[in-house]
Amino acid sequence: MIDVAREVADAEARIRPHIRETPLEPSPYFGAAGSAEVVLKCENLQHTGSFKVRGALSKVLSLSEEERARGVVTASTGNHGAAVSFALGKVGGTGVVFVPETAAATKLAAIERLGGEIRRHGTDSGETELFARRYAEETGATYVPPYNDARVIGGQGTIGAELARQADRLDAVYVSVGGGGLIAGIGGYLKGLSPDTQVIGCSPAASQVMVQSVAAGKILDLPSEPTLSDGTAGGVEPDAITLPLVQRYVDRFVTVSEAEIRAALRQFMDAHHMMIEGAAAVAIAAYLKDAAAWRGKTVAIVLCGANISLEVLRDVLQD
Amino acid sequence: MIDVAREVADAEARIRPHIRETPLEPSPYFGAAGSAEVVLKCENLQHTGSFKVRGALSKVLSLSEEERARGVVTASTGNHGAAVSFALGKVGGTGVVFVPETAAATKLAAIERLGGEIRRHGTDSGETELFARRYAEETGATYVPPYNDARVIGGQGTIGAELARQADRLDAVYVSVGGGGLIAGIGGYLKGLSPDTQVIGCSPAASQVMVQSVAAGKILDLPSEPTLSDGTAGGVEPDAITLPLVQRYVDRFVTVSEAEIRAALRQFMDAHHMMIEGAAAVAIAAYLKDAAAWRGKTVAIVLCGANISLEVLRDVLQD
Repeated sequence: MIDVAREVADAEARIRPHIRETPLEPSPYFGAAGSAEVVLKCENLQHTGSFKVRGALSKVLSLSEEERARGVVTASTGNHGAAVSFALGKVGGTGVVFVPETAAATKLAAIERLGGEIRRHGTDSGETELFARRYAEETGATYVPPYNDARVIGGQGTIGAELARQADRLDAVYVSVGGGGLIAGIGGYLKGLSPDTQVIGCSPAASQVMVQSVAAGKILDLPSEPTLSDGTAGGVEPDAITLPLVQRYVDRFVTVSEAEIRAALRQFMDAHHMMIEGAAAVAIAAYLKDAAAWRGKTVAIVLCGANISLEVLRDVLQD
Repeated sequence: MIDVAREVADAEARIRPHIRETPLEPSPYFGAAGSAEVVLKCENLQHTGSFKVRGALSKVLSLSEEERARGVVTASTGNHGAAVSFALGKVGGTGVVFVPETAAATKLAAIERLGGEIRRHGTDSGETELFARRYAEETGATYVPPYNDARVIGGQGTIGAELARQADRLDAVYVSVGGGGLIAGIGGYLKGLSPDTQVIGCSPAASQVMVQSVAAGKILDLPSEPTLSDGTAGGVEPDAITLPLVQRYVDRFVTVSEAEIRAALRQFMDAHHMMIEGAAAVAIAAYLKDAAAWRGKTVAIVLCGANISLEVLRDVLQD
């Protein structure tokens, strides 16, 4: 198992000049739901609108000059692709973000504006990823995985380091779970500092591969239903190094329905006048299910990102 | 005419511990429209989601202990009401925010959460304001006006002080104009530092009382059509001290249609994944009309606030 505290400390030293210390915003609105003090960790305001830049920068900056010269490669049209593109634009270096030929033009334009080079290959994300990994092997480039990597987990864990600086006390932290890189980093770091802080994994009921995998003690190959939380959806790699970390550092899980995610997203936008994506609303929805348990306590909710399309947002506002 | 530089310096000293230095966010997306470097001053991320807290805090903190003890009063269900409520919650002191009896419950809840006391009187905002002013006179409380006050203008001008610190160079700044407090503060401050920075007033064509008043050389009593930019809409007080400041410091005006405001709001949310209100989209829309003029230059757009209701947002996203 990787040493999360050390990975976070190393990542801090590498990425701090390039990332935002995002605000920890008090939420009297959500606090009122459980007579708790609720604070929101606003990674929706991180560069590119997602925490993923922390992990991508941590990985890219950990490479030797020689490795950097051979370039980096990833495959993603989403937050991770934008994060790698941002990292390349920020610290220099060559790299390629592979995307399916069917990817939406607006998403690609966003990645390109950040400074990364885009190449199209394949017609679904699995095929594109396979090609990108092979391309990396053949050219000697480094593949930057979205969560299954110690440097990436260390980068995401710098959110934990910020939380520890920004909050006097934290009785619980609600974190969305997809591949588990975010909660492994935050949970591993915070548990080392304050073992009594409850680390609560939040997942859409429609796609909860990591939740079920922890229960089974091994990564399961499970189907996923469609979910508003596209940022956490989908399968987990069979050899994911996040599994033992999530087993160790996550106290329990809360799963939420699509209706709960949609309602939480609307409530947040109405009260706080910021945008968040479905994956961030999952953590709010999970807290709202638990709210009564936190009377008089201090609870942080990690808002992992803001990247929701206007089409999806319009649909969510219809209800 | 008031000395804006001095008012801003005094306001800085008073309010700095209580406000956010909001980010100056680069916008390659809007920059591409005119091959310019565009930066966005994110007052949408200011406390309460609006620049108005700067002016309200500046006024409240300028009062003597005796005046503070007699309390402050204002009349507003919008950003200014929330700002005064926030100021009272932050620095203490008694005060009342008067609202019409017909005001929406969600707006009132937001004002109350910030710490202010609400009282209902009258059925339209004019009647409520008149009552609040009389109440102030009768009780010896201080009425906090939304723009027609030197301390308030000084507070809004602290945005200019931040811009000067955050940007190496500014060829132009686009600022929305309602009563003129925001642009008088920012324009007055920046013109003192760098007279070549163009200060451009941005107004919805549907409600442009200050624009027409500057042309006429006196405050006009003009009707307003409905506009998405509710934050800038409506009449201007006949004795507004902002008029000579706007005449002196604003280089020119750009008016924009409702369709242009709506389109700018959608483009911004799609590219930057933050919420803004109509008044902020006015400044973006005005820049977009001018974009071709700024090739190779650096332009700031002030995003004055984020407070848009989900109903209005849903409507804007329908187009």
